[in-house]
This record gives sequence, structure tokens and C-alpha cells, in this order.
Amino acid sequence: MNKRIYGVILAGGQGTRMGNSEKPKQFLVIAGKPVIIHTLEKFIVFSEFTEIIVLVPRPWIAYTRDIIKQYVPDEKHIAIIEGGKTRNETIMNAIEYIDNQEQLDDETLIITHDSVRPFVTYRIIEENIKYAGECGACDTVIPASDTIVESVDGSYISSIPERRMMYQGQTPQSFRAKRLRELYESLTTEEKDILTDACKIYVLKNEPVHLVEGEVSNIKITYPHDLRVAEAILGGNGQC
Amino acid sequence: MNKRIYGVILAGGQGTRMGNSEKPKQFLVIAGKPVIIHTLEKFIVFSEFTEIIVLVPRPWIAYTRDIIKQYVPDEKHIAIIEGGKTRNETIMNAIEYIDNQEQLDDETLIITHDSVRPFVTYRIIEENIKYAGECGACDTVIPASDTIVESVDGSYISSIPERRMMYQGQTPQSFRAKRLRELYESLTTEEKDILTDACKIYVLKNEPVHLVEGEVSNIKITYPHDLRVAEAILGGNGQC
Repeated sequence: MNKRIYGVILAGGQGTRMGNSEKPKQFLVIAGKPVIIHTLEKFIVFSEFTEIIVLVPRPWIAYTRDIIKQYVPDEKHIAIIEGGKTRNETIMNAIEYIDNQEQLDDETLIITHDSVRPFVTYRIIEENIKYAGECGACDTVIPASDTIVESVDGSYISSIPERRMMYQGQTPQSFRAKRLRELYESLTTEEKDILTDACKIYVLKNEPVHLVEGEVSNIKITYPHDLRVAEAILGGNGQC
Repeated sequence: MNKRIYGVILAGGQGTRMGNSEKPKQFLVIAGKPVIIHTLEKFIVFSEFTEIIVLVPRPWIAYTRDIIKQYVPDEKHIAIIEGGKTRNETIMNAIEYIDNQEQLDDETLIITHDSVRPFVTYRIIEENIKYAGECGACDTVIPASDTIVESVDGSYISSIPERRMMYQGQTPQSFRAKRLRELYESLTTEEKDILTDACKIYVLKNEPVHLVEGEVSNIKITYPHDLRVAEAILGGNGQC
């Protein structure tokens, strides 16, 4: 039996940082297509994926189905399901969906990715599949481009960690799904509230998370100025 | 006697990350002007500055003089001097220049700023002047937009610090110049090599560094894609 691998596109967020726009940012259009479609297209080309699970807020499920039908009409391996209240709850919904299909075993992998990072590369997805399979968990990062500063009180610097050890987290973050769920379920309610990053669960439980080298261009579309950057990247050279 | 305050524009770098361009990135043109001119224009409007000191690599001194004459011909309070081998050595050159003019006392402030951050705001410069004067040192930062990941070995995550305490450093970084020089001169040669960030000298010597709130748009032009962002910011709405 082949190892099952799922793409998990996290579009649960309502995107409150984008100014007056009413649409969550994953649905804004860049270079003629919604952001989430650009992202999906990166995953669709991989034959390794058993299925690609897209998690969106409930009011956006029908809309998501419509745009996927419009832009990738021939694609049969996409499931659209409801996201959770938090990022980790959304991931748990994806794992539950896999489990309900009786497809979850120790080796089943999930490659979780922000719907608003449309510039992820094929190389990054490939390496996520490789390292999640070999090590059980991996995280996509780039070396920190700025000096990182720590302030405990928000007024004065408390430390400036050594820059060569510091990275900025991107996505995908990839896991053996069953193990991730076990670790998550072992947390207290309080820990669940604090641990907003799935990789941090592994770190706190002393389980290894391998690094995958990301790309500076693998940006998250968060602020209005990111939309202009995205247009520039897509329109400027046609490479993405 | 009034407190003396100097703008210190750091353009010492040769800018090797910009692809094939031969010009250091501070001289690349966006929206019709070299990046460094956009930056200078933000400082020129402040009457508080005794002088604005621009530090560039020796081969670029004459060129810098020429473009400043071309774009800001009426400005008399700009000095162009040679930068050092490192960022801190460049800052020390600026302090030596001030000292040689017999203008250095305990209260003399320097507002040091990357020449490749043309989108600094007037509010940020004002707050740097205020907090450097009150506290002796300050650093411009924004809350970390990504999860920050630490890896000691470069292969596995060693820790994921609590995100709400993590900030990304920008500039200006501002100091009482005499005290900064004293602290720098107290370092060993080895420490000087390691401490690439001037604020870190203060942190290691247990001297306070106040935070100043930066802006997401106060980007550093480092990669080719930043130039496109910069064009979009400048061309898109004329606000900068």
C-alpha cells in the first residue's frame, strides 16, 4: 500500500488586516485569479497527493466550490471542508476528514500550507514531502532578513539573539498526521490556546522538526502592500 | 547651548545581493531618483539636525556628491565621508567626524539610518530623537510578522520563542554618540567582530535601549523584488 499524502490548504482566516475589503484575503484577485487558486495550482500538479483538502470558513464554502469549478474544472481530487476556530483546530478538521475516510495510518502525511502564500515553489513542496516522511515533521523557513529583537515588556530590548540562528517561519509545515493529532490531544486547554503554531507542539514535546529551506518570494499576503508586490511578481516576469 | 543632533545615513555597503547590478543598491533609481536621495529627503526637512552625515564607500564619494548636488542643490548641511569596513566602524567614522569638529559632548545624539530604507516616516525620526535624548539609546522595530524559529544546528528547530515578544529590527537606531563610542571601544577585537548590531552592544553591557515603533512599509531594499515593491509604493499612491 502506498503512503498517503494530503495537501491541506489553510484558508480558515477571515483576514482582518486588509483594510476595507470585505472578502477574506485568500479570495482577492491577483493577475486575474483569486489568490487561493494560484496556491491550489502549485499543489495540483503533484500526483503524489491522494487529495487536496481546502479548509475555509463556513460562509465561504459554496463560493470556494464555485471558483474552483471555474478555474480548475477538471480537478477531481479537491475536498472543500469547514475550517476551525484556530489554525490548529482547522488542521484537526482536516485530519478528522482523512480519518473518516478510513485513510489515516501512522505514515499518512499532511502538507499544510497557507492559502495566502501563492508563491510556494515545487521544490519546497517536494522537500516537505521528503522530510515529513523521513523525520515525521518539518517546517519551511528562511534565514531572518532583519535583526531579531526580543522585548519582554514591549518598551525596552531584553535580548538580541544571534542572527545566524534565527529564521522566519513560512509554510508548508508538514507532519505525520496521526502523531500530530496525538500530540495535540495531549495538550491542556490552556496549552492549546497558547500553541498557535503546530511545529511548536513538537518542540515542546521534544520531538524533532526538520527545517526545509523556503524562499524570500514565498510571501504571505497580509497587508494591502503585499497585493501590489504579488501583482508585480506575477505580472512582472511571468515566472510564478 | 542647544543639544546637537546628527543624521547619520549608512551607505557603506557594496550591496552584493542585488543580482547583476554594478551599482550598490543605495544608488539604484526608483520613481526617478536614487534610493539614497529619497532617504536623505526624509532627514533634510528636520531643522533639528546640525548636519546630516552620509557615509559611502570611498569609490562612491564623488558620485554621491554629484547626485546630492543634482537633486538637493540648496542643501548646505550635508557632509559626505568615507564609511568603514563594518557597520559599526562606519558609525565610528561619523562620531570621529563630529569629534573633529569639536561638536561632541555627552548629549550629542546620532540618528543612524540605513540608506536603503527610503520609506522611513517623519514620526519615526521624531520619536528616535525623543527617545535617544531621554534614554540614551533607541531602536526602531515592528512586531514580528512571521513566527520566529531558532535553529542552533541549521537542520532542526531548537526553539520557537513566544511570538508576542519578538520584533524585527529596522532603523533608525539612535544613540548618545559619546557613550556609544565608549562602549564600542571597551569591546575586545573578537567582540567587535561578533557585535554587528550597535544596539546589541548596549544590551550586552546592560544599558537600556528603548523601542520605537516602526512601520511595515519601512522596508530595506535588499533583493530585486524589493525594488518592484518600492516602485509600487512610490508610484502607486504618491504618499511617500
